[in-house]
Amino acid sequence: MPGSVPASPVVIDLLTQSPHLHPRGDDRFRLVRPGQSANRPTPFDPGTHGNPCRTFAVQDYLALADHPGLRAATTAALSQHRLCPAGTATCLGLTVPVLALEDRTARFLHLSAAVVFPSGAEAIRATLRAILSPGDAVIVDAGAHPAMFETVLTAGARPHRSPPGSVEGVERRLLRLSRTRRAGRLWVAVPAISAHASVMADLADLAALCNRHGAGLIVDVAHDLGAMGQSGGGVMEIQGCLGRPSVVIGSFAKCFGAPGGFAAVQDPNLKARLRDQQGTTAALSPVLAATILAAFDIIDSPEGVRRRRRLHANSLRLRNHLMADGVRVMGQPSPLVPVRLPPGTALARTALLQSAGLAVTLLGPPTVALHAPRWRLQLSADHGPADIDGLADMVRDVVRW
Amino acid sequence: MPGSVPASPVVIDLLTQSPHLHPRGDDRFRLVRPGQSANRPTPFDPGTHGNPCRTFAVQDYLALADHPGLRAATTAALSQHRLCPAGTATCLGLTVPVLALEDRTARFLHLSAAVVFPSGAEAIRATLRAILSPGDAVIVDAGAHPAMFETVLTAGARPHRSPPGSVEGVERRLLRLSRTRRAGRLWVAVPAISAHASVMADLADLAALCNRHGAGLIVDVAHDLGAMGQSGGGVMEIQGCLGRPSVVIGSFAKCFGAPGGFAAVQDPNLKARLRDQQGTTAALSPVLAATILAAFDIIDSPEGVRRRRRLHANSLRLRNHLMADGVRVMGQPSPLVPVRLPPGTALARTALLQSAGLAVTLLGPPTVALHAPRWRLQLSADHGPADIDGLADMVRDVVRW
Repeated sequence: MPGSVPASPVVIDLLTQSPHLHPRGDDRFRLVRPGQSANRPTPFDPGTHGNPCRTFAVQDYLALADHPGLRAATTAALSQHRLCPAGTATCLGLTVPVLALEDRTARFLHLSAAVVFPSGAEAIRATLRAILSPGDAVIVDAGAHPAMFETVLTAGARPHRSPPGSVEGVERRLLRLSRTRRAGRLWVAVPAISAHASVMADLADLAALCNRHGAGLIVDVAHDLGAMGQSGGGVMEIQGCLGRPSVVIGSFAKCFGAPGGFAAVQDPNLKARLRDQQGTTAALSPVLAATILAAFDIIDSPEGVRRRRRLHANSLRLRNHLMADGVRVMGQPSPLVPVRLPPGTALARTALLQSAGLAVTLLGPPTVALHAPRWRLQLSADHGPADIDGLADMVRDVVRW
Repeated sequence: MPGSVPASPVVIDLLTQSPHLHPRGDDRFRLVRPGQSANRPTPFDPGTHGNPCRTFAVQDYLALADHPGLRAATTAALSQHRLCPAGTATCLGLTVPVLALEDRTARFLHLSAAVVFPSGAEAIRATLRAILSPGDAVIVDAGAHPAMFETVLTAGARPHRSPPGSVEGVERRLLRLSRTRRAGRLWVAVPAISAHASVMADLADLAALCNRHGAGLIVDVAHDLGAMGQSGGGVMEIQGCLGRPSVVIGSFAKCFGAPGGFAAVQDPNLKARLRDQQGTTAALSPVLAATILAAFDIIDSPEGVRRRRRLHANSLRLRNHLMADGVRVMGQPSPLVPVRLPPGTALARTALLQSAGLAVTLLGPPTVALHAPRWRLQLSADHGPADIDGLADMVRDVVRW
């Protein structure tokens, strides 16, 4: 199964003083502190340890996870609601904050309805189970989340892998598939920003293409919603196609400061099917829903605009530095900056970067191809120009070594 | 696919004053308040609304979700940690509270190692992906969680459905399978207490049987861990086989007051594979891990023993009342008391119960067979004898009607 290969980045953290490289037999990388077994990685909490500005491995693009407003909202919600939902969505799990969050998410995305889940992965699984039927054909972007491929298969639909971010790739497949006889309908599933290569999808073109062929468009906005676009609408806002995909799936964990996921749909009739699937899994905690609502307030405010501007400036600054230095930066500007590394020495180079006190994420096999290891530098609005310049200097030195 | 049929209980809540029955064409039940669309169920938070002692639909067996100690622990953790983990377990997600919780869970289960996940369903998926190989044969109890069947299939292993709670059923299949040629190994997967029928597995017998045939035993303890047994060790403690299953999977959501799941293993070498799978999904929030640790403290204390005694007394009292009245109570004593209903009138009977202000969970198709609808009465340590007697009276009146 192509999509069932999981992502497994290596933790490179600030606490590890003298790294000890321990490449395992099965081609995965693993970094071990002396005296520690490979099964016992170093605990790390960027909120309490180390200098957060030297950490480029945290997915918290707008730096809201430590925001005092969010903390206050969570504490207030704790005094009103249970941390643990009473049951599934159909079984007392649909609390007041959860329903308010669903309304807010739908309005934010200019779609008719939204449903929330305890995580982004659960949102992908439940949504695809709800909307796909056996006999459907799904063109899945190669950069999509592994749960997409997996759920297309378990739903009895047929996945067709398409090259990452390629409108032409989708078009060729759509043309071919719309000529073949098929029991079900056609779907196209793409990430707005691919998690491993920061490839941006042409959502407006894809939406028009899907419209022409009668296909449904499913967009995963886990890495851009809240973090990109003037008002935080992500790639859809940038490309002027908010509200045009049939289904938008995403995660609150990267930008809204609390675990959670959602699916929003254009066709209001799909909502009942999403609700049924929502009942098969745990509901989102009302306390976490209240936290995410508070994050929406910040993201929707002038403070949110300022945070997105700082984040975007950081991303452009880092890309410009690195590209000027001849470093192989991948994809388009986004909160993620993937840097290609020469294969074979990726782990040693990462250890060097780490010995300088910089925390980065190394993606190796099986997440990405063996010949294409890379760092995924994850930026936040709290990084300053000096942090970015220091990172660029270090990356250049280490990559050129 | 037999196992992919999801659970979809009907919400019956206290807020709905005059229920309006709306059986849908596709055989699922749905209860709608007048003036409300089927897609917009009534929000409900048993922590804030209604009389919690008249609610028998909440999964919070030890009544810890509203415990002031747990609230205090969560608030304290919020001031120290991020609510949202920084990334996956391999990517800064292994925080100090998460590692402490893993140690505590392994010790509590008398197993060598444990790994935690953001939910029980995620724990099932990740663990089966980690331990199963293509060619393996898995005998899955018919009462197991749907994610078990699904993941056995996506892992490329072969599921063999076994009658719920039947040691003989497992033995026959083990005998047959151990005679056939097979590329992989044999596994048996059972819930300690089945969620829909409260059938208790004979774990000691199954462990011995698996031992004899060289099969691995996977036990799901979502509904009994913490809630049953003198020290909260669940069915394994009651049957004197703590530490004997190869793999124990469970959820913290039903008894420990916070969302989360875990997998614990006997063979320490399996832990590395679990860690790899843990890296494919979001990590558990350090704040929630701290909450669950505080719940462990209560569960492990004399207060925990008292709460379990009250819960057990409630369960026996309700079963005795109902059985004396000729009501069809299913399974063995546990925090869940399933009551069989005559098919066809289940929804109307539930509405009657609800009009008396009692919240219960109705299980209908596709969760359970069309001809076997039932109420799952969910008890907690906070219910008093008067609550139980009132419930038993109402159930008798409504079932006999």
